[in-house]
Amino acid sequence: MEAKLLQSYTQEELRAALRETKEAYEAFQAKQLSLNMARGVPGSDQLDLTAAMLDTLSADSDPVSEGGDVRNYGVLTGIPEAKKLFADILGADPDEMFIAGNSSLELMFTCLQIAFVRGIAGCQPWCRQEKIKFLCPVPGYDRHFAVSGYFGAEMIPVPTDENGPDMATVKQYVENDPAVKGIWCIPIYANPTGIVYSDETVRAFAALKPAAKDFRIFWDNAYVIHTLTDQPAKPLTINQACAEAGNPDIFYQFMSTSKITFPGAGVAAMNTSKTNMQEFVKAIGIMTIGYDKINQLRHVRFFGNADNMRAHMEKHRALLVPKFNTVLNTLEKEIAPLGIASWTNPKGGYFISFNAPKGTAKRIVQLCKEGGVTLTGAGATYPYGNDPDDSNIRIAPTFPTVEKLAQAMELFCICVKLAALEQLAK
Amino acid sequence: MEAKLLQSYTQEELRAALRETKEAYEAFQAKQLSLNMARGVPGSDQLDLTAAMLDTLSADSDPVSEGGDVRNYGVLTGIPEAKKLFADILGADPDEMFIAGNSSLELMFTCLQIAFVRGIAGCQPWCRQEKIKFLCPVPGYDRHFAVSGYFGAEMIPVPTDENGPDMATVKQYVENDPAVKGIWCIPIYANPTGIVYSDETVRAFAALKPAAKDFRIFWDNAYVIHTLTDQPAKPLTINQACAEAGNPDIFYQFMSTSKITFPGAGVAAMNTSKTNMQEFVKAIGIMTIGYDKINQLRHVRFFGNADNMRAHMEKHRALLVPKFNTVLNTLEKEIAPLGIASWTNPKGGYFISFNAPKGTAKRIVQLCKEGGVTLTGAGATYPYGNDPDDSNIRIAPTFPTVEKLAQAMELFCICVKLAALEQLAK
Repeated sequence: MEAKLLQSYTQEELRAALRETKEAYEAFQAKQLSLNMARGVPGSDQLDLTAAMLDTLSADSDPVSEGGDVRNYGVLTGIPEAKKLFADILGADPDEMFIAGNSSLELMFTCLQIAFVRGIAGCQPWCRQEKIKFLCPVPGYDRHFAVSGYFGAEMIPVPTDENGPDMATVKQYVENDPAVKGIWCIPIYANPTGIVYSDETVRAFAALKPAAKDFRIFWDNAYVIHTLTDQPAKPLTINQACAEAGNPDIFYQFMSTSKITFPGAGVAAMNTSKTNMQEFVKAIGIMTIGYDKINQLRHVRFFGNADNMRAHMEKHRALLVPKFNTVLNTLEKEIAPLGIASWTNPKGGYFISFNAPKGTAKRIVQLCKEGGVTLTGAGATYPYGNDPDDSNIRIAPTFPTVEKLAQAMELFCICVKLAALEQLAK
Repeated sequence: MEAKLLQSYTQEELRAALRETKEAYEAFQAKQLSLNMARGVPGSDQLDLTAAMLDTLSADSDPVSEGGDVRNYGVLTGIPEAKKLFADILGADPDEMFIAGNSSLELMFTCLQIAFVRGIAGCQPWCRQEKIKFLCPVPGYDRHFAVSGYFGAEMIPVPTDENGPDMATVKQYVENDPAVKGIWCIPIYANPTGIVYSDETVRAFAALKPAAKDFRIFWDNAYVIHTLTDQPAKPLTINQACAEAGNPDIFYQFMSTSKITFPGAGVAAMNTSKTNMQEFVKAIGIMTIGYDKINQLRHVRFFGNADNMRAHMEKHRALLVPKFNTVLNTLEKEIAPLGIASWTNPKGGYFISFNAPKGTAKRIVQLCKEGGVTLTGAGATYPYGNDPDDSNIRIAPTFPTVEKLAQAMELFCICVKLAALEQLAK
């Protein structure tokens, strides 16, 4: 296919291109590729970076933290050294930290669960309120949407740009509708767009005057130190902004080491005001006898401090940049000349967000699947799986090797062209 | 105080004994003991038994289970080797196992949460049902009661004897009242009584025909292999009994390694029918990205098989028997002659259940506390903390050294006498 804008093709050229692309696709199918790129999964070379953490605690180690013997019961809110470590990463107060098990999603879920079952901030439990709503900046993270959907929330998509969610829309909903109980935010290297919220956006969040006393910002800082450049994003922190705005109880902030150490054996952390924390701990003390404190200590001993954790991310970056470049270079070479799609060039995080020609995302994902590459489902980045333009596709380049990824992207570009040509050729 | 039945004392003798016991108590207070016996916490010598588990996985280990690389995402229901290990302990089907993180209480909580928020077995969620009730065999485990209380259940105490809960009462409630949604059971070495449910009791549970389709038996097998004798209890398993009764969906069964390996870094497991499991996994897939699989593999590599896990419990037994004997011998010597109290002589588990003279349990716990020994709160073994006789006290002998425990029991006996004498002496 020649390198000119697809819109300038004649029908004859389109039909020829369609035939040509179909042949290329069928040739690819014959290769019987089998690759899963559905989720943001670290490669095994990334996991090897943390291998030495398994040596930090052995039979002969002193198993005692400032909180006591980590092997025994107790210390529900996490060992003090881990609170300090994660607080330093978030720029937060160690006394406003909760350290948990392997999943920050579970901490988010638990915050919603407490509000739903018991109620927070003196409000009726959500299960006894007539209706609850959640704001969902789009494109966003499907697992967030699944959590609010689980609790029966009506989910309202909010457009985002390079500075974050459209704050006029957010303010309009949050300040006028008492059924609006939360908003899902990924403030740094967002999933899937890679954007970093501007300080102005963060301040606008902190200044919200919610109609509902039990409204909370769910600030999922999953990629807080996951930079792909040598100039890490350092936006205003939500905790500082909310403190300055005299609005300290409006947020819960989350992070985890899933993509720092091990997705299968990491540590999750939550940061929120002392008032919120008190309410949270009271409920969680009923829910569990506590989280794995040995693994918390393992993380503390492996990193020592926040600077070392940031330095560790440099090693991830070295492995990830070639993969992101493989995706971007292939798209630049194969798709850019056709003028049919746009995509992000993220400075961090785990994803490239690809906007295909309207009405083709589902078809592209289907074609890729039948060609041997499983992508995130089309629509997954929208609540209810409903992308009104059927356009957004999340590309997750981290798991395959560069070689496999190059193959997968070759297929992806063929599928994008094929879907576009199917639409245009009469 | 002479060794004769307290009821045969004259008033003069009672007053003399009261003075004498008060003096002994005050002498004890002067020692400024400080000991917490509130919960069933393993001693650090018990934790040392598992030290070598920390060496099973190091930087050089192969981190792969039959489920794949345990360091990465995935395998939500637990690694296959761990399912096999825990299934063998419970006499269950590995395909009917779910392996989680550090807390089996959290698994129980989650089962209630799913029923409350989403509903199970095609029923309305509990949050939309007018009223829910839970049966609570007494004396029982305060954290069970706290979980059902959290979800607003009305809790109904059910008497127990040496064979388990009174099954006529259980049947009456379960089969006639559709608001009854669950019952808390600790079938082996129950907390706090140490009883083992008879096979007849297990069969009666399996044969229940609940009025509510979403009624479930919460079978907390926390002490399944925690024997204190060389003749471990091997009662009929609930899974086998329910299968035989054609009632496979009526139970959830739980266990954990909290008191096998580390309370602060163990593995919890659930066993239930494939139908229940499917419903459970669907919900939990929204709640979390998964549990610590490295720690699951650590447990698998440390034990290898169920027989080795049982053999490991022999080492716990060797450390625990002297502690239980210290309690029993002191009670036998100091309290038995007075004929004012009764207590259990458990064949396993973590507790001795002590029945003080009616109306004195709160006073005894208070006296102990002021004497430097914190016991489980009086009433904790009853729902709402309400022991109608104010009699039952749970003694947890595992955490202190034998020497400290001997001191604590000396104080305890003084406090029992003092409270009894305060009641009797005019």
